[in-house]
Amino acid sequence: MNRKQLVEQIFKKRSFLCVGLDSEIDKIPHHLLHLSDPVFEFNKQIIDATHDLVVAYKPNLAFYECDGQAGWESLKKTMDYITKKAPEVFTIADAKRGDIGNTSKQYAHAFFGGSPAFDFDAITVAPYMGEDSVLPFLTFENKWVILLALTSNKGAFDFQFLEDKKSGKRLFEEVLIRSQQYGNKENMMYVAGATQAEMFADIRKIVPEHFLLVPGIGAQGGSLEEVCKYGLNKDCGLLINSSRGIIFASDKTDFLEKAREETLKLQQKMDKLLNSLIS
Amino acid sequence: MNRKQLVEQIFKKRSFLCVGLDSEIDKIPHHLLHLSDPVFEFNKQIIDATHDLVVAYKPNLAFYECDGQAGWESLKKTMDYITKKAPEVFTIADAKRGDIGNTSKQYAHAFFGGSPAFDFDAITVAPYMGEDSVLPFLTFENKWVILLALTSNKGAFDFQFLEDKKSGKRLFEEVLIRSQQYGNKENMMYVAGATQAEMFADIRKIVPEHFLLVPGIGAQGGSLEEVCKYGLNKDCGLLINSSRGIIFASDKTDFLEKAREETLKLQQKMDKLLNSLIS
Repeated sequence: MNRKQLVEQIFKKRSFLCVGLDSEIDKIPHHLLHLSDPVFEFNKQIIDATHDLVVAYKPNLAFYECDGQAGWESLKKTMDYITKKAPEVFTIADAKRGDIGNTSKQYAHAFFGGSPAFDFDAITVAPYMGEDSVLPFLTFENKWVILLALTSNKGAFDFQFLEDKKSGKRLFEEVLIRSQQYGNKENMMYVAGATQAEMFADIRKIVPEHFLLVPGIGAQGGSLEEVCKYGLNKDCGLLINSSRGIIFASDKTDFLEKAREETLKLQQKMDKLLNSLIS
Repeated sequence: MNRKQLVEQIFKKRSFLCVGLDSEIDKIPHHLLHLSDPVFEFNKQIIDATHDLVVAYKPNLAFYECDGQAGWESLKKTMDYITKKAPEVFTIADAKRGDIGNTSKQYAHAFFGGSPAFDFDAITVAPYMGEDSVLPFLTFENKWVILLALTSNKGAFDFQFLEDKKSGKRLFEEVLIRSQQYGNKENMMYVAGATQAEMFADIRKIVPEHFLLVPGIGAQGGSLEEVCKYGLNKDCGLLINSSRGIIFASDKTDFLEKAREETLKLQQKMDKLLNSLIS
C-alpha cells in the first residue's frame, strides 16, 4: 500500500487506529478454546467487529511464534482473512527484526515476499545494526519499514536517551536523522511511544512529514490527545495502536461487543481530532 | 546448558567453533533439491560431518522464516536431530529479538519453552529497547541471552560508536556496562564482530569474564588470530562463528568433505590457540 492510499483510507474512515492482534491464548475468551484454531477464530471475529473503524492491523509475531508451527498457521489464516474481508486495511508485522544485509534480505522475503510466507504492508525493524540491516526491506515496492525510534517501555530510558557528544542529539534523534538516508516518507515510518508524548514536538522537528506508529495508548497509559497535540500533521501522520485495550476489553462471550465499543470510542475521538486539522 | 558444561565441552573437543546454519535454499547443493525437505537434509548432513569438531550450532531464523511454515518444520527437525545426534552441542537461536516485557516473555517461550515451539540454549537479543526487553529471557534456568554489542556489519558504525556525552562511553560500551544489571556471566554473552578485532581489548576491559559470540570470520573478513589475541580468557570465553565459509564451502556433491575440511582447519587452529592459555 502506498502513502496516498493510506491517507485516503484514514480520511474516508475518519480513523487512524491500528489494532494490535496480540492474541495471547491465555487471554482469549474460554468459550473459543474448544475450536480447532482458537487464535485464528478470535482474530477473525475481532476483524469482523472492527474493520470498518480501523485503518491497520498489527499482529505481534511473538504471540504466534510461541505456539510454533500452529502459531504460524493461525497468523497465515489471519492475514488471508484480512485480505479477503478488509483488503483496504494496512497490515503491519510487528516483528522488530534486523540483521546483517544478506540476512535482513531473507526477513524481507519472509514478511513481504508472499507465499510461502507473508505479504504484509509493513514491518517494524530495530535500528541497532544500522543501514544495511534496514535497506533490504526497502527494495520492495509499496512496502514500509517502521523503524524503532522512541519506544513506549521503561527500558526505552536505558539507551534511547543517550546524548551523542558530537551532535548533542539523543540516540532516538540520531536514529530519526540518519535513517532519512535509508528511506523517505513514502516507505518509512517510526515507532514513537505514546508514553513519551512530551517528546513528540522534538520528533516532529526532525520528521515533520513521516508517519509515526504510536503504541502505548491504553494499557501502557499514554494519552491520545497529548500525542495528537504534537504529532498530527496535514496528512494525519499518525497510526495509533491499541492492543489489549480493545481485543481483551472483555474475556466473556460479550468480547466482540466490548471490543467494538472500545474501538468506536477511539474512532469517535479520532474523528474529532481529524476535524481539527481542517479548521 | 550451564557455563561449566559449555567450558568442559570446549576443552574436551579442543574447539570453540560455532557453525551458523544459515541454510539458504538457493545455495544448497543441487542434488539435494529433489528431496522432500532439502534444508533439513542439508543441515542433517552438515551436522553429521561436523558435530565432533564444534561446540555450537547457530541457525539464523531469517533463513527459515522466509520459507513460512515449511521453514519452521525444517528448523524443528534440525533441532530435534541435534538433540539426538549431538546433545552436548550448545544451540543458539540467532533471532535478534527484543520487545516490551510482556511480548519478550512470549518470545522467550517460543525459543526456550520447548514444544510446541523450540528449546534452544541461547538466543541473540537486540538491546535497543533496554532492560524489560531482555529480562524475560533470563527467567529460564540454564538458558542464555546473547546481547548485540558490536556487530560485524558496515551498519555497526551508524549508531554503535556514538559517544555518550555524560559517560564518555560509546553506545556498545554502554550496552556492555548497563546490561550487567540484567544478567551475569552465567546467563549472558555478547555479540562482538570479528571485523572489529581492534575493539576487543576495550570490550574485555568491561566484560573480562563473559563469553563473546563472534561472527564475521571468513566471508566477512575477520581474523581468528586477531580476535583471540585480545578476546580469549581463562575459560576460553569465545564462541567463534563461521557460517557460509563452512556450510557452503562447496555446492557440489563433495560439500560434506569440503565442509569438514574447513571445520577441521579452524578446529586445529583453535586447538593451538587453547594451548596458549596454559603456557
